Amino acid sequence: MVSEREIKVRPYECDSYGHVNNANYLNYLEYARFEFMRDAGFDYQGLRAAGYGMYVARIEIDYRLPAMVDDELLIRSWPVKRGVVSGVMAQKITRGGDTIAEANVTWAFVGKNGVPVRPPPEFDTSLLG
Amino acid sequence: MVSEREIKVRPYECDSYGHVNNANYLNYLEYARFEFMRDAGFDYQGLRAAGYGMYVARIEIDYRLPAMVDDELLIRSWPVKRGVVSGVMAQKITRGGDTIAEANVTWAFVGKNGVPVRPPPEFDTSLLG
Amino acid sequence: MVSEREIKVRPYECDSYGHVNNANYLNYLEYARFEFMRDAGFDYQGLRAAGYGMYVARIEIDYRLPAMVDDELLIRSWPVKRGVVSGVMAQKITRGGDTIAEANVTWAFVGKNGVPVRPPPEFDTSLLG
Amino acid sequence: MVSEREIKVRPYECDSYGHVNNANYLNYLEYARFEFMRDAGFDYQGLRAAGYGMYVARIEIDYRLPAMVDDELLIRSWPVKRGVVSGVMAQKITRGGDTIAEANVTWAFVGKNGVPVRPPPEFDTSLLG
Repeated sequence: MVSEREIKVRPYECDSYGHVNNANYLNYLEYARFEFMRDAGFDYQGLRAAGYGMYVARIEIDYRLPAMVDDELLIRSWPVKRGVVSGVMAQKITRGGDTIAEANVTWAFVGKNGVPVRPPPEFDTSLLG
Repeated sequence: MVSEREIKVRPYECDSYGHVNNANYLNYLEYARFEFMRDAGFDYQGLRAAGYGMYVARIEIDYRLPAMVDDELLIRSWPVKRGVVSGVMAQKITRGGDTIAEANVTWAFVGKNGVPVRPPPEFDTSLLG
Repeated sequence: MVSEREIKVRPYECDSYGHVNNANYLNYLEYARFEFMRDAGFDYQGLRAAGYGMYVARIEIDYRLPAMVDDELLIRSWPVKRGVVSGVMAQKITRGGDTIAEANVTWAFVGKNGVPVRPPPEFDTSLLG
Repeated sequence: MVSEREIKVRPYECDSYGHVNNANYLNYLEYARFEFMRDAGFDYQGLRAAGYGMYVARIEIDYRLPAMVDDELLIRSWPVKRGVVSGVMAQKITRGGDTIAEANVTWAFVGKNGVPVRPPPEFDTSLLG
């Protein structure tokens, strides 16, 4: 499954060059990953209520072209790898035919103590990849 | 040269888990890279005034342990690789003896048109690595 | 003239209660004021290029109801008062029939030195109220 | 009681003028109000754990002078008015002898349903003003 979301760049997300600042792309990507989970039907709130969490272990991001205020960006998110307690999601931000940024995000399930753990079966993690 | 800066986590930098959100680490790292340039005596304002810029082409970041409000973090930054128009800087965020995050940041010089370019010699880029 | 813009709340704009944090409303309002200037046909970029600026001198904001992630907010902006070098704009954020926040924002024109000043006549400031 | 905190402006908190953006001052003030509660010995975490909250109902802020990157700001916070379920706190941001911004912040206690309410007596709210 590939999840798609559009986002319009707001002026306060830009730096003194008029470009979206590097940190803000991570906000965009996080938003898009939550939307991926929503599209997949994954019960993230339930997971948290049951005492589990998901955390981001690693991000690799390539900045290809700067995005600017008013740009309409398309963010696509899809799973590329899956282990028992973790996985990798690919994400790509484009504007029209241009690639703005590409990322690989490694996530892991954690228990109450923050240690990676397999979640209970009622959380059908096959939904995540 | 290794540049060191301390930063204290502020409450509005944390997410609903009470952890520094992932995007904010990139703000911390950017701050520390500017401070590295300051320590190195690199004239970044002059570079911009002369029509050049530096942009971040790639970031790899590993999140090891969550940082929380009031944490006193130490950020160390040092160059690890150097080409003609680009370079890589390593950065490590620690809290006491614990590693919070580690990153490699690839940067490049660009001209007015945003294309990678070698800056004029008065910007002694050996200062950057 | 009343300018209207819609904004959808993104998860990273919310605090640990799941509510949009108070500071972020000011970002929303700033965005909407720029859009007001755009709707009015005011040449803000030209004003800055000519060495002038506009700054916010005072904000009064009443928070009526919390906004949450995914909320679709409507922001209306309209001028309520006008002096020679300054003015007041009213702004109201609503969600459906509910008022989320109301603000009065006092702005002023400034010259290069940051001192309030009347801009040159080619900037038809009647557009602002 | 007057609570004092120092904050050093970070580059990513500044806008394209090189000034701290208006929204960020509200983050600074929020930080300083939490520190006021800490200084006063008020058990805010306990209040939340007991199902109560505090919310900001109104902010009036006057921006006097712009703050810039590296500025060392002093934020002073003190109570100026107190009702049964609400109160007003004054806050002043200075840099050396200069006033950067002044604010009055109206807050209220709320119960689980978000309605203003008197908290139970074990939360000695006299600590807040």
